[in-house]
Order: sequence, then structure tokens, then C-alpha cells
Amino acid sequence: AMAGGSWARAVRGLLLDVSGVLYDSGADGGVPIAGSAEAVRRIKASGLKLQLCTNETQATRENFVRKLRAMGFDISVAEVTAPAPAACHLLKERGLRPHLLVHNDLVPEFAEFDKTNPNCVVLGDAAENFTYANLNEAFRLLIGMEKPVLISLGKGRYYKETDGLKLDVGAYMKALEYACDIQAEVVGKPAKRFFESALAELGVPPEQAIMIGDDIVNDVGGAQQCGMRALQVRTGKYRPADENHPEVKPDAYVNNLAEAVDIILQQL
Amino acid sequence: AMAGGSWARAVRGLLLDVSGVLYDSGADGGVPIAGSAEAVRRIKASGLKLQLCTNETQATRENFVRKLRAMGFDISVAEVTAPAPAACHLLKERGLRPHLLVHNDLVPEFAEFDKTNPNCVVLGDAAENFTYANLNEAFRLLIGMEKPVLISLGKGRYYKETDGLKLDVGAYMKALEYACDIQAEVVGKPAKRFFESALAELGVPPEQAIMIGDDIVNDVGGAQQCGMRALQVRTGKYRPADENHPEVKPDAYVNNLAEAVDIILQQL
Repeated sequence: AMAGGSWARAVRGLLLDVSGVLYDSGADGGVPIAGSAEAVRRIKASGLKLQLCTNETQATRENFVRKLRAMGFDISVAEVTAPAPAACHLLKERGLRPHLLVHNDLVPEFAEFDKTNPNCVVLGDAAENFTYANLNEAFRLLIGMEKPVLISLGKGRYYKETDGLKLDVGAYMKALEYACDIQAEVVGKPAKRFFESALAELGVPPEQAIMIGDDIVNDVGGAQQCGMRALQVRTGKYRPADENHPEVKPDAYVNNLAEAVDIILQQL
Repeated sequence: AMAGGSWARAVRGLLLDVSGVLYDSGADGGVPIAGSAEAVRRIKASGLKLQLCTNETQATRENFVRKLRAMGFDISVAEVTAPAPAACHLLKERGLRPHLLVHNDLVPEFAEFDKTNPNCVVLGDAAENFTYANLNEAFRLLIGMEKPVLISLGKGRYYKETDGLKLDVGAYMKALEYACDIQAEVVGKPAKRFFESALAELGVPPEQAIMIGDDIVNDVGGAQQCGMRALQVRTGKYRPADENHPEVKPDAYVNNLAEAVDIILQQL
């Protein structure tokens, strides 16, 4: 990755994935990845624009930013693009009344919506709320709708916490899709519309932006589909087998965010 | 269905699905479907051969038969073809050590197997055992295997209990398949090998056998793939939309098992 680095030329803004790039999440709140807080400060000092682009749905954006700041990351709420606000936008546009199967800490994001007599299901990374009873309830609501609407906040397969790998929302999305014979609408990475919102907030066109993430499909593949360059870090849920992915090839691999920032800043 | 009935000619044996055909299952043990116990007696009196072909995995065959007998069905253990014994056969053949994610009451079926250091996961309709923790555990074992082996006892979407529809094993199978990027091996309906075992136990070739079930895909479609005729009953999880299924067309619809038996016996 260090040799060359032509992929780093003519960049004006960075989109960063969060879990696995800035920190490793966990029941204990997670731990920062070495060098990442300093890397965020160096990006800002350089004049490059920066936006976090996350599929995090276990907390409101406000609480999420509070956690990042406590870990030493200089980040504000406006610098975070996350699925729940995007889903709220979609619900409003279409006049939908959601049934929520999400993490307790995400519920306040949907405070404005009428939840009686729901006409869609919103699925997030509900973690401990993924109980047999809650999954059956979401299923019954969907199968009872004339035209079932399932909105999934991301479609990740799994993620890494400090105590091991966990099934992500995508696995539960597939369970409900199969049971109801429907296709979910995905809000979050890798949806094109979601990356486009993040770019709009970044204020930089795709050809001048680089996405940096640990997920070969949802971060790297999704960003490249939007015309961005994309790097995979070898932190977080990265696995060596990702380097033989049949469909997605990053513009470069970097050992971590700090190394990516080293190379990018050298090119400025 | 009554008019004609040419589909009923030259039959020597019947394969019957159980839940939704003989009885409706439920937390209370379930309730027999009107006329079904009498229909089983009439089949036996007629000299037709009979075998139950079920994807039931919430109890050992012995306990399952005990429950059926208490509801008035004249059935013996040898007359039941079920996924767990078929899965045990497969595990023995291949020297596999299973990790079980199944209903507590099914565990005794797998008593003979070493479960330390598992090299496959066996998934059944685990019901209340489908917890977030248990699903993560099965996932971690699979993703940690060099060549993950997931054996699924059926792949049903959902079933009907007296208190409503419940997600079936197939939904959880899809969740694990997606998370691990693998294909499960299905033991049970609609697998051809499973129907062939049931026919061998029935002692009748496929062209002289009729399958009767409430599941358009797993009962009707699966049996037809094996060269059997197949009827869909309008009991259990039957829904009117099944009659417009894009791929599967039963040889006939009948209101219930009793009606099917009326027509078949008239042809003898």
C-alpha cells in the first residue's frame, strides 16, 4: 500500500466507516483502534473534508457521538451519516407508520412517528431484542399486510465485538425476507442513495472522495458503485480471505486508518 | 375435487403430512382436525399402506407418536418418517460431531453422538431456543470451521399454531446461510432423499403413492419432484393465495384429509 499510492491523488474528502476503523465495539463500550483518534485530528488539520458513514443502529446519533468523543475522537453530530435519520426521512416521505424491531437505545430516533396500526416494519441491529417472540411478532405483522414493507437499517452479515463475532441485521433481514417471500428495502450502506446522502453532507463529488472501511462488500463495494475510490483497512472484521473476494477489489489495502492518512497526506 | 377424481386411480399407499393435516399444533399440545382420526382408521381398514411423512422436530418420534395416539390417531413409531432419524443416519455416515440448535425435546434423538469439538451444526425448529445468544453461538461455530457444515431439519417458512403463525426453521437457516455465505444441507421435506426414504418405508413405488399435505412447496412440490401425485388440503397453513402459486400445482385440492380419503376409497 505504501509503495505508489496513486489512488490517493486529487482527493478532497474522506468518508470513514466507524466500527472496525475508529474503534472496536463491545459490550464494554468498545476500545479505540491505535492511531485512529490522532488520524482524525490530522485529517481535519489538513483541510480535507471528513464525514463518518456508519451503519450503526444501536444508539441515537447524539449518544453515538458522545461515546466517540469520550474515546478521544473530535467528531460532531453533523459529521455522522447514519441509517436511522435516513429511514425517518423515508417514512415521512411515504407516510408510513413503523413497527420497530431495533435496539432500545435507537427508539428515540423514531419518536415523531405514530406506531399504532403499523404498515411497515423497521429492522435494525436489535441485538438482545432479537428474541423468538419479537421476530415472530415482526413476521406476523408483515405476513398480515396486503403489501408487506420491510425497511432494513443495513444488511451486514456480522460484526466483531470485543467478545467475538455477532450476527448483524442482515441475517435477520434474510430470515424475514424468506419467511414472507419479500425483498427488504435497505437504508444504509451499501445502498447508493445512502452513500449519496453522505457525499452531499461531505460536500465533495464522488471522484474526489475516498471511502475507508473494514467491510469489503458494504463499505468498499458500495462506495465503488457510487464512483468513489475505496480502501479496506486490515482492522475490525477484516479477514485475509477478503483479499480473494470474487467481486470486490479495493483500490488499496491499508493496515489501519493511520496508515491510510499517512499516504493521503503525503499526496496533498 | 369431488368431480372426476381420476388423480385417485391406481393408488396403493398414502404419505400424510401431520401438522395441518391430522391436527393443528399449539402450545397446548394442539387439536385434531375434524374427521382426520377416522380417516386414518378408514385408510388402514381399506388395505392401503400408510406412512406419516413429517418435518416435525419438536419431539422425539416416540413422544410425537404418544401425542398423536392421545389425540385418537392409530399410529405406531414405525409409521413415522421424520428428519431427526434421517439426520442421525447422515451424521453416522460422515462421522460428524454435531452442535445442536434444536428443541430441548429433540435432544435425546442425538444421544449417541460425541458433541465435543463439533464439526457441524444441526438446526431444527428450536422454538424458544432460538435466542440471540444461541444463534450467535451456532454462527461462530460455523464461521470458525474450515468448511462449515450446516444441516437443517427442513426448510419451512412458517407454520400455524393455535395462537398464530410462527417462523419455522427455514427462516433461521437462511439467516445462518447468509451470515456464513454457505448453503445448508436440508434433511426433511422437500429433499428428494427424504421422500425416497418415506416411500421405501411405505413399500410402494412413487407412481402408486399420493402425498397429502398443507404445504404447497415442501409437501406438494417435493412429492411431485419424486414422481408422486400430491394433494393440498385446505386446512393447517393453507392460504387461498397458494392456489396461484407460480411453480407448484397440486394434482387436486381437497377440503381436508377426510374428503381426500372419501374420494380415494371410492376408486378402489
